[in-house]
Amino acid sequence: MARIVMKFGGTSMAGTERIRRVANIVRRQQAAGHEVAVVVSAMAGETDRLVNFCREANPLYDPAEYDVVVAAGEQITSGLLALTLQALGCKARSWLGWQLPIHTDNAHAKARIGEIEADAVIASMEAGEIAVIPGFQGIGEDGRVATLGRGGSDTSAVAIAAAIGADRCDIYTDVDGVYTTDPRIVAKARKLKAVTFEEMLELASVGSKVLQTRSVSLAMKEGVRVQVLSSFVDDDAPLADDLPGTLIVSDEELEGLDMESQLITGIAADKNEAKVILTRVPDKPGAVAQIFGPLAAASINVDMIIQNVGREKGETDVTFTVPSADLVRTQALLEEHKDEIGFNRIITDAKVAKISIVGVGMRSHAGIAATMFKAMADRGINIQAISTSEIKVSVLIDEDETELAVRILHTAYGLDDDRDAA
Amino acid sequence: MARIVMKFGGTSMAGTERIRRVANIVRRQQAAGHEVAVVVSAMAGETDRLVNFCREANPLYDPAEYDVVVAAGEQITSGLLALTLQALGCKARSWLGWQLPIHTDNAHAKARIGEIEADAVIASMEAGEIAVIPGFQGIGEDGRVATLGRGGSDTSAVAIAAAIGADRCDIYTDVDGVYTTDPRIVAKARKLKAVTFEEMLELASVGSKVLQTRSVSLAMKEGVRVQVLSSFVDDDAPLADDLPGTLIVSDEELEGLDMESQLITGIAADKNEAKVILTRVPDKPGAVAQIFGPLAAASINVDMIIQNVGREKGETDVTFTVPSADLVRTQALLEEHKDEIGFNRIITDAKVAKISIVGVGMRSHAGIAATMFKAMADRGINIQAISTSEIKVSVLIDEDETELAVRILHTAYGLDDDRDAA
Repeated sequence: MARIVMKFGGTSMAGTERIRRVANIVRRQQAAGHEVAVVVSAMAGETDRLVNFCREANPLYDPAEYDVVVAAGEQITSGLLALTLQALGCKARSWLGWQLPIHTDNAHAKARIGEIEADAVIASMEAGEIAVIPGFQGIGEDGRVATLGRGGSDTSAVAIAAAIGADRCDIYTDVDGVYTTDPRIVAKARKLKAVTFEEMLELASVGSKVLQTRSVSLAMKEGVRVQVLSSFVDDDAPLADDLPGTLIVSDEELEGLDMESQLITGIAADKNEAKVILTRVPDKPGAVAQIFGPLAAASINVDMIIQNVGREKGETDVTFTVPSADLVRTQALLEEHKDEIGFNRIITDAKVAKISIVGVGMRSHAGIAATMFKAMADRGINIQAISTSEIKVSVLIDEDETELAVRILHTAYGLDDDRDAA
Repeated sequence: MARIVMKFGGTSMAGTERIRRVANIVRRQQAAGHEVAVVVSAMAGETDRLVNFCREANPLYDPAEYDVVVAAGEQITSGLLALTLQALGCKARSWLGWQLPIHTDNAHAKARIGEIEADAVIASMEAGEIAVIPGFQGIGEDGRVATLGRGGSDTSAVAIAAAIGADRCDIYTDVDGVYTTDPRIVAKARKLKAVTFEEMLELASVGSKVLQTRSVSLAMKEGVRVQVLSSFVDDDAPLADDLPGTLIVSDEELEGLDMESQLITGIAADKNEAKVILTRVPDKPGAVAQIFGPLAAASINVDMIIQNVGREKGETDVTFTVPSADLVRTQALLEEHKDEIGFNRIITDAKVAKISIVGVGMRSHAGIAATMFKAMADRGINIQAISTSEIKVSVLIDEDETELAVRILHTAYGLDDDRDAA
């Protein structure tokens, strides 16, 4: 017997017919002998409907009241799932965020989960009752409803899994796992049996939209084993216990799984970056701080940074990337601080893409990056910038070459054959 | 300065455009120098949507989970009204049922309000903040969301008015007050300036659907002055303080209002009654208890009861009315207890209507009922049963004659002239 958290997203909860499918999956999981808690999202479209109401009511909305409105979506689906489970003969009850309670800070609309008081819900699960918990919400220190921000239900599920000491947190979604790359780009992309938390973080932060990044960080910190799997399955599909999806685990556990090792786990593409070049910046101590201080103060996330040798002595060009959505603000801030920074011109380019190869295997293998650079050079793809971390190499290229680059690299690292990837 | 509770129904809250109208009315009321609490219903149609979800999920639904689902409707509108008031420059915040809290019993889906802890909300109102409170809900002794049953928001408003010591509870609705009779039947029906709690109870329980009966009983018990008025008014309409609607008050206050006295305040028609005749019931002590005991045990509300002299010695016919919706159950229960009761036949008729004249004036005037009987006899309307209370005379007639009877009586009691009614 194990204790399992199951999380279902908005597409899986869209309407009573789909909720019945979800209830069937939950019932099967409990019938396998487990204690089960279920975390649910609002019906697909419902949160958008409620957010639009808030915008219409007050464009500069008070986040505490916004939370009162939007939290209703998950409240509705948790009651409905409990009712549907009861109709299938299961014991089930809902636990709202303020009932457990799930404590959060007071940062309404983007709250962070603190302590979760789980004693009552554990006792209920031990008595054979399925706990149904709305994702995305808790109660702030001010005693009011607080939501975690869009996509926060994944984080709720992982936090609850940690609080109740769950053996596994299964995230049911509309894809059946994490792939070596986007299957819409590479038809031969393969589902991964397992990835490490670090790999998942790198894949998520560069564009694999399967799991919310915060939830993966939290799972890593709390040591929660996560599985991503599909909620659109038949009644005779394998149980989640058979691990049909992708398992996200620690390095140690991945090694213990004894799977065929690959140097590279996955390839991610991100078109939401924009390139900024500042020309003829004084090449002196403190110059970089002058550039990035104002951007950090404005919470603009600077990613790749390259300092080129300039054409004139004592001057240098500085290239970096920011999220495309922040490009206009970035330009305005830099113009504002032009005198302190002392650059000549700002050149921007939003038509760039960041391609990343990710894998824990590269820690122990040299030459991984060289394979990437050669494969791209062979096809004439120009690399505009490079950045690396311990388990990732990213390059910035022309956006038009995104799909070509991903396909070349998928082949170059031997990912698109028929063996199981790991 | 006064302390006012304002309550808005689902039609007034249907969509952000209408919520903006409501917010304007609330803002004007506060600007007149008052402390204001607002009680809101869900958007029209929303509760039906949520109830249907529950029925689809589980036809025999668990009322505690049903409450979790349907309470979301008022939660949404209370957040939206707070946001809209803020957009108009008012200080406002929502207080959910579990936050005040509004304590109820554990009778989920039809809970009764107990104690309301009002200190925090009073402090907030005294600081100039408008309190927005979802109607229809509270928190049960089990710590879970509890709803009061359909139409419960009127009761919430009155209970909150009592708890915070409000000077007046204004119930905004889609009609502009209480009329001498249904204006769809009698074009010359007039709006009443004021009625007593008892009159309103009699008018409501016989078919005037303006206020939920429970809310009127509670207002009478707690001495809460209630005004019914329209939410569909222009910005330059008279303030609620000028009492443009119908005031519902105690006998003493009505006398103090010094309005022109009428013997009859209003005329109500109710087509939702059915007549049952049991023939040849033994005319002995305890016989009536044998009939009505089982019906009371099944919570069937028996209204008019007439015992006729039977054709045989020692036997009698018993006639009574029950709600049409309970007629089938009533027949089944009576057949089940036929031996104990000892009747001969059951004769039923659902095509009847109960016409009632209501007025505190009849306490001090004889001959009120005689006028009614004569007016109906003159037009050949047959009276099948009669029942009276201190301030009401009701007669049962053929349903087809409902409108005719109401018009005749409205004229007979001098209600359809041009003077103001009282």
